[in-house]
Amino acid sequence: MTPISKRIGVLGAGQLGRMLALAGYPLGQKFGFYGMSEDEPSALLGNMHLHSEEADNLKALVDFADVITFESENTDLAVVREIAKTTPVYPGERSLEVSQHRGKEKTLFRDKGIPCANFAIINSLEELEKAVDVIGVPSILKTTTEGYDGKGQFMIKTGEEVEQAWNEIGGRELILEAFVDFHRELSLVAVRNAHGEHRFYPLVQNVHHKGILRYTIAPAQEVSEEVQKQAESYIQTLLDELDHVGVLTLELFETDYGLFANEMAPRVHNSGHWTIEGAQTSQFENHVRAICGLPLGSTEPKQPIAAMLNIVGETGPVEKVLQKENAHLHLYDKAERTGRKLGHITILSDTQDNLFADIKSLNDFLPL
Amino acid sequence: MTPISKRIGVLGAGQLGRMLALAGYPLGQKFGFYGMSEDEPSALLGNMHLHSEEADNLKALVDFADVITFESENTDLAVVREIAKTTPVYPGERSLEVSQHRGKEKTLFRDKGIPCANFAIINSLEELEKAVDVIGVPSILKTTTEGYDGKGQFMIKTGEEVEQAWNEIGGRELILEAFVDFHRELSLVAVRNAHGEHRFYPLVQNVHHKGILRYTIAPAQEVSEEVQKQAESYIQTLLDELDHVGVLTLELFETDYGLFANEMAPRVHNSGHWTIEGAQTSQFENHVRAICGLPLGSTEPKQPIAAMLNIVGETGPVEKVLQKENAHLHLYDKAERTGRKLGHITILSDTQDNLFADIKSLNDFLPL
Repeated sequence: MTPISKRIGVLGAGQLGRMLALAGYPLGQKFGFYGMSEDEPSALLGNMHLHSEEADNLKALVDFADVITFESENTDLAVVREIAKTTPVYPGERSLEVSQHRGKEKTLFRDKGIPCANFAIINSLEELEKAVDVIGVPSILKTTTEGYDGKGQFMIKTGEEVEQAWNEIGGRELILEAFVDFHRELSLVAVRNAHGEHRFYPLVQNVHHKGILRYTIAPAQEVSEEVQKQAESYIQTLLDELDHVGVLTLELFETDYGLFANEMAPRVHNSGHWTIEGAQTSQFENHVRAICGLPLGSTEPKQPIAAMLNIVGETGPVEKVLQKENAHLHLYDKAERTGRKLGHITILSDTQDNLFADIKSLNDFLPL
Repeated sequence: MTPISKRIGVLGAGQLGRMLALAGYPLGQKFGFYGMSEDEPSALLGNMHLHSEEADNLKALVDFADVITFESENTDLAVVREIAKTTPVYPGERSLEVSQHRGKEKTLFRDKGIPCANFAIINSLEELEKAVDVIGVPSILKTTTEGYDGKGQFMIKTGEEVEQAWNEIGGRELILEAFVDFHRELSLVAVRNAHGEHRFYPLVQNVHHKGILRYTIAPAQEVSEEVQKQAESYIQTLLDELDHVGVLTLELFETDYGLFANEMAPRVHNSGHWTIEGAQTSQFENHVRAICGLPLGSTEPKQPIAAMLNIVGETGPVEKVLQKENAHLHLYDKAERTGRKLGHITILSDTQDNLFADIKSLNDFLPL
């Protein structure tokens, strides 16, 4: 172990843990994972501690680790609180608590003056009817917790759909959010270490299909310096308020009225995968640096423009990717399944036109 | 497992295996290692099979693997031959056999018209005396097998040192090589896949201290296109003659009389570590692609000039490296020991002057 080495325990063993490990080993860090199966994407990349009814393998991971981090905002808060009594967990409990509950998240945005959609917390059909009267239609009803890639959501287009919406996803705490008429979705990945040092990657543009991110353009084109600074000020407010240590991602809508915060993720983010080859320091390396108390690395892009294409559902003709000089392949070693993220492709380019020509040549990987 | 995935078994578990794994996982490959201890640099990066007197753990690795590769030219040839009966081993036996014996290597160079120092194989003091008469002084006496980083060598400066030289390293097969008066040492890393596709990285310049590589400048400055092509033709001859699959490195002396081949290594090479951040595709990824039968990736540099500094003996003030925006740290998770390679630093730059200023700012890592 070198002077800067730490043993990092990751709650989860998916592709994010895998890419954290690939970025962290070169810094002399060691990794352990807590997962459900030996087939998970991180399983070969460190000490794998399997969830078990018989043995306290979570304790084994915590005993191994100098610092604990997590892959998902759906990580059990009670578990994190228990671990934090003996071992530092980054990002902290507060970041996890807020980001796993859409109501707390939106409340924080509002309290801190970060523009976001009007919203109301809903616990009954009556509350929903009342909220639809105030917020109007179209509006989106969502579960306050869990749900990702568009799951657990209902778009209410007319007042007549209120009861159907409640029947489909109600019976639990929900949030009704005003529909935001946006031009495009942007996101900002930022990182903060325990010394309060901040770094921001450029805003990127995200394109979804059926609720799943399909590609990201980095940096987002036609973003003024003022808009970039505005987004940075929002996320810096959140980082400092939460005393966040590690990467934090803020998803934003670009509208006629400026940026609206949609949601945040207390972790490395799919829209930041382009940074592996595309930025001086990847989001994964910067997360590792942050949670290990190390200086943060430059977030500058290495080339004028890049794209990240998700490989979703089927692996597809990946040899085509290997044949492209400016493309980089990342497979997560996951079995094919509809809607599942199996890997991604990064394309680096000098101009937007060339980039789009390259994306077009890989359109096997895009939904059409 | 995706359509392009293979299970790669590595004989050895040092830093080269570690960096191969870090490059290979993103392509969907899985790794296993055969090593001596759980503390080796690759141990956490795949299935670790430990050498044991009681169990045939090498067989376990071979059973795991779709393809076998090795970290060192000192790998036991008999072991490789046995494995090759059931499982493909890349690079092949012939590359290993030639490169682990300085006599066979120099003979191949000579037979293929690749300029190299005059040499003679020595099995007795008498043969040594006779050879010194023919080859002259200064000349270098070396063991034909093993020996690296300058170990197992004796520089004979005058005829009176012949007996001392024999006493110090003799009693086994030796090779006497004429001393080559060179301006600088260059190396070329190349890769060939089973379909006979070749790629060449640019020539780089290597600077040694006490027989250990301390830094590499990539590409080597003031190399004409003609010299680059000359070096490529030498290594292509070797690649094809050996039916080599994987990375091959050729060390060369630049002299008044053109390039002289010094030695070759049938593997990824310390002088190619800069390619991790500095080239479109790293030597490690290209080795993995080659041995898995995949198309090779671009070997183009990503920036005008780069340097690779080895971290030798002591880890040193590595936080300084993390604070430099254009520097990348690679630690191998090895304990400090005099002369041991513990890691390396890659610096990317736009001009030679800026690069040298950056190197100077990290001179804690250079011998002075």
